[in-house]
Amino acid sequence: MEQVKVVLQDREIPKKWYNIMADLPTPMKPPLHPGTGQPVTPNDLAAIFPMNIIEHETSNKRWIKIPDEVLQKYLLWRPSPLYRAYNFEKLLNCPVKIYYKNEGVSPAGSHKPNAAIPMAYYNKVAGTKRITTETGAGQWGSALSMACQMFGLICRVYMVKISYEQKPYRRMMMNTWGAECIPSPSNLTQAGRNVLAEHPDSPGSLGIAISEAIEDCVTSKDTKYSLGSVLNHVLLYQSIIGLEAQKQMQKLGIYPDVVMGCCGGGSNFAGIASPFVCDKIHGKDVKIVGAEPSSCPSMTKGPFAYDFGDLAKTTPLLPMYTLGHDYVPAPIHAGGLRYHGMAPIVSHMVREKLVEPRAYDQLKTFDAGVKWARSEGFIPAPETNHVLAAVVDEAMRAKEEGKEKVILFNWSGHGLVDLAAYDAYLAGKLQAYELPDHEVERALNAIKDFPKP
Amino acid sequence: MEQVKVVLQDREIPKKWYNIMADLPTPMKPPLHPGTGQPVTPNDLAAIFPMNIIEHETSNKRWIKIPDEVLQKYLLWRPSPLYRAYNFEKLLNCPVKIYYKNEGVSPAGSHKPNAAIPMAYYNKVAGTKRITTETGAGQWGSALSMACQMFGLICRVYMVKISYEQKPYRRMMMNTWGAECIPSPSNLTQAGRNVLAEHPDSPGSLGIAISEAIEDCVTSKDTKYSLGSVLNHVLLYQSIIGLEAQKQMQKLGIYPDVVMGCCGGGSNFAGIASPFVCDKIHGKDVKIVGAEPSSCPSMTKGPFAYDFGDLAKTTPLLPMYTLGHDYVPAPIHAGGLRYHGMAPIVSHMVREKLVEPRAYDQLKTFDAGVKWARSEGFIPAPETNHVLAAVVDEAMRAKEEGKEKVILFNWSGHGLVDLAAYDAYLAGKLQAYELPDHEVERALNAIKDFPKP
Repeated sequence: MEQVKVVLQDREIPKKWYNIMADLPTPMKPPLHPGTGQPVTPNDLAAIFPMNIIEHETSNKRWIKIPDEVLQKYLLWRPSPLYRAYNFEKLLNCPVKIYYKNEGVSPAGSHKPNAAIPMAYYNKVAGTKRITTETGAGQWGSALSMACQMFGLICRVYMVKISYEQKPYRRMMMNTWGAECIPSPSNLTQAGRNVLAEHPDSPGSLGIAISEAIEDCVTSKDTKYSLGSVLNHVLLYQSIIGLEAQKQMQKLGIYPDVVMGCCGGGSNFAGIASPFVCDKIHGKDVKIVGAEPSSCPSMTKGPFAYDFGDLAKTTPLLPMYTLGHDYVPAPIHAGGLRYHGMAPIVSHMVREKLVEPRAYDQLKTFDAGVKWARSEGFIPAPETNHVLAAVVDEAMRAKEEGKEKVILFNWSGHGLVDLAAYDAYLAGKLQAYELPDHEVERALNAIKDFPKP
Repeated sequence: MEQVKVVLQDREIPKKWYNIMADLPTPMKPPLHPGTGQPVTPNDLAAIFPMNIIEHETSNKRWIKIPDEVLQKYLLWRPSPLYRAYNFEKLLNCPVKIYYKNEGVSPAGSHKPNAAIPMAYYNKVAGTKRITTETGAGQWGSALSMACQMFGLICRVYMVKISYEQKPYRRMMMNTWGAECIPSPSNLTQAGRNVLAEHPDSPGSLGIAISEAIEDCVTSKDTKYSLGSVLNHVLLYQSIIGLEAQKQMQKLGIYPDVVMGCCGGGSNFAGIASPFVCDKIHGKDVKIVGAEPSSCPSMTKGPFAYDFGDLAKTTPLLPMYTLGHDYVPAPIHAGGLRYHGMAPIVSHMVREKLVEPRAYDQLKTFDAGVKWARSEGFIPAPETNHVLAAVVDEAMRAKEEGKEKVILFNWSGHGLVDLAAYDAYLAGKLQAYELPDHEVERALNAIKDFPKP
């Protein structure tokens, strides 16, 4: 009988988040106020975020204490188990040892509650009564719904209408946790009404949903807004994944050669990677790989530029790899990776060659995902299938090179609410998508009038 | 920060199953061959089960070694965590400490793989190439699909047609794990064709699906049949739940006053309960409560009688509490509890007053389930909601009695694939169902010509 998992006791949970900002070898460009072109100030953000979260967004402190109230909720599923994927290794038959962090054990089934819990908590402390947010496929919306319920906050989620209709289970999760889920565009906001007036049948987009959530926030009493990825504070809260993984690998006496995650906005990837990036900055020989969809390849094909986080241009200008704020990604099933930009921190790490991005096509990712489900049991989320494709790729490279490697990756969530995607894949109905060249032209055009980072 | 979970390391997993047959204070009645009226022999069962499983079905040995190959697969999710439900306790505000075993952490999301893994393994060892089974809501079918895939067996699941259509996600799980899922009645068997000839629109039933799976088994090469509950060997394999729970409670230095589970065929309930029933037999003061649906109250309203396990009368006659093999339970959402009978072992324990049965209505169970999801986070399966209703009930009794109590129960699975049931409940569309008196008359009539136990 071989040991499959390293589980930590509750008392071993990390008590601090790790902030990679403290260790970046070169400073990041600041986000800019689109009106003035000047770096945004905490006050610029105060209309939508409480000040305690803004402090984290702008902090350079290396370690930030996790409040007891947050730890207490984390313990509902954390520390998450670290697994050795023996069965998948056997299937691949390559000279690799594969370890993974199972973030699918949370009540929402993904890593998203790692950030939702502290956000709800800090809002509660700051006197917020109600939170608005947007969601694409629904992972973030469901996680925040649960967190708000746990801290007694009202929660309204604007969900991209086509996902609202195609993925009813995530809407039902939000309702079960007591939140309101509104298909976007809606007639509850001016932004939504404008879209509906012009396109009554609009399927919605993350851009429109963000605009609705922010408008609802700034026009309502005691209401703040939450974003589930991209921003520094979100990546900070997710660092608990990597911190736990380091403890667990230490217990095995093993250090990984490669650390991998899938990348949409960047939060689960930075969550597992940032403590290892810190080691790399301090001289450790470790490769860090981010896997993105070839249909939405911001890091591998987009320019590094100042761009808006949303279509409606309501966010600050962020320095990041971007396919342009007006990009409409292909309808792949990994809804959580359909974002035009990449977290500024992750973008910076790619620029600094600390992180190596790779793009994988949807068909390759589902091939890896089905192989995984049939060997390891757990059915991965379509997003997670992207890192699995990268793991397969890395294992094959190890075989070609004749080198033994230890791979660690973040298994960001399960796919039990995304089974229709597997059904389509098994029926041969999924398509491969590559970004056409003209989309790169469009991206360059979208950002051409903005300041250059 | 308070400890929420007791997690065991892989090496602490129990290495033997516990067989309550060795400790029952009075002997159980044997299953009978319906043709001869005589106790069934191992050979009578050899057409549908391999001999190594038949040995377990008829064994009186107290401890049975778990093979290494089974332990290795168990380790994918076992030992499962034992939780203290602080948030639910706070909500109830009663003098109770509530501990629960989280069986929702398995890849299939329920306790079912505990039995599916050894069944696939023992069949593999015995030379079986292919397994047939039936499934209602799909929990058993999905668990067996995964287990067969892991041991390289072909798997065909006959799924009750109305569930096949209403719960497409579980069918998709089976397909993702490589199994074939056939809506029953089908035209692949004579039993199915007979039903279709008479009722082309038949929604199917567990009874018909069992007949199809057994016919397929006995008419196919190298094929055996598997059943996911009721029988002795299934309950044996599930004993790992209670054995782990005992280790975990010992680590806390606490012994429960009450042990609870929900009851359909009886496997998850016996799984958590049997090691505690053993203690009770040997003098320990512990109350053991089984929660069943008021729409399908075999233990609380059915006669104890010899009856068939299926509508088509293909099984041996089993001594059990039964609502009659021809009973069609109301369409409650806890599909896993819609079974006319109760495991002979559990029925015997009820007869011996070792187990106290209670029945709960669907609306009460969903009320408890939503309260649970909103405090503890994890969304329970509709089946699991029945034990939650019993926990609420027990907590209220403790308050009335002014007595402190420690409750331990089995959280048999999550409800992420059953969210449509929550949706219906929250929309006020669920109904309460109580068994009408004439159904008890019908039950008595159904069994009147069979031998009396």
